[in-house]
Amino acid sequence: MDIGPYSFDEYVHLVKSFHGHAAPGMIIGGIMVDIALNNKPAGELFDALCETANCLPDAVQLLTPCTMGNGWLRIVNLGRFSVTLYEKNGGEGVRVYLDSSTLDAWPAIKEWFFKLKPKKDQDSQALFEQIKDAGAKLCKVRSVHVHPRFMEKRSKGSIAVCPLCGEAYPSKDGEICLGCGDENPYTEFH
Amino acid sequence: MDIGPYSFDEYVHLVKSFHGHAAPGMIIGGIMVDIALNNKPAGELFDALCETANCLPDAVQLLTPCTMGNGWLRIVNLGRFSVTLYEKNGGEGVRVYLDSSTLDAWPAIKEWFFKLKPKKDQDSQALFEQIKDAGAKLCKVRSVHVHPRFMEKRSKGSIAVCPLCGEAYPSKDGEICLGCGDENPYTEFH
Repeated sequence: MDIGPYSFDEYVHLVKSFHGHAAPGMIIGGIMVDIALNNKPAGELFDALCETANCLPDAVQLLTPCTMGNGWLRIVNLGRFSVTLYEKNGGEGVRVYLDSSTLDAWPAIKEWFFKLKPKKDQDSQALFEQIKDAGAKLCKVRSVHVHPRFMEKRSKGSIAVCPLCGEAYPSKDGEICLGCGDENPYTEFH
Repeated sequence: MDIGPYSFDEYVHLVKSFHGHAAPGMIIGGIMVDIALNNKPAGELFDALCETANCLPDAVQLLTPCTMGNGWLRIVNLGRFSVTLYEKNGGEGVRVYLDSSTLDAWPAIKEWFFKLKPKKDQDSQALFEQIKDAGAKLCKVRSVHVHPRFMEKRSKGSIAVCPLCGEAYPSKDGEICLGCGDENPYTEFH
């Protein structure tokens, strides 16, 4: 089984290097992104939308041109294990998701996906063998049209200097930057 | 100038491959992450917090073990060009930011950072030369303590099957999944 331009083993190697370990969600995520790439609408320019923040965004970043920092990957955290690749101007896309109704045939995957046992009691070897065996059979593909709000270009607009912290920030955020307002992420600052 | 474990040219090569192009924000971002790595508190286990979604998250993902999909990188979009690496249990951290008060010495960087000219009229060659010349002089470092809400482990809790879409979702989200509720990201679905 190939995943994107990689052999299965090459992909696992890449996952360990980028994500830290060969998480089951990264292997299934890679299979899902591969399916999405093979089914996406014609046209080179596509964005990605992940419905979970777990694992799947890293599979997208490893296998497509879409990253968090270049703005082509969006995470809409709906808690569903699903990825959509869509034409960035028109919104036509393909959504791939893990079809949980198939999992009775793959008990170790079901145990992991539905958290039926604590992680330490799960059979990791069986899990990986079943993922490799099941492959694309775990997934379903749908045609979708994403909402126009996901087709808007991300722009900060004009830049001001915050009178409190002295740092640059988007002037549309108001008289002071969000970090000096209610959203300050720090309890101490030296 | 080295950036993380890479020479400057190696880093630029990596940026082009991952991020798509050698964006100025990726080069300055790499310099900032490098400074943070060299100043972070002792201890191996750290998380990262980016105060912008632009470029900087990709520099973190290329130069540290923290990624979006493994949960060690958080984006708190305050619109400030700043990255914090912090001890993931205690919250002690180091915050590195671009010090805009230095930019009078680097006019091409100032023009880009404050968007003083349309991108097509900016001098891209001068910009890259000034970034390489200025390096760490563009940045300031502060000790911080991050708010406890950024030290909480991300957990979905128990998993249910949505009665509408049939997909798995975190049962804490309610009777139906968020995607079948108000947050549906699709206008068409086949």
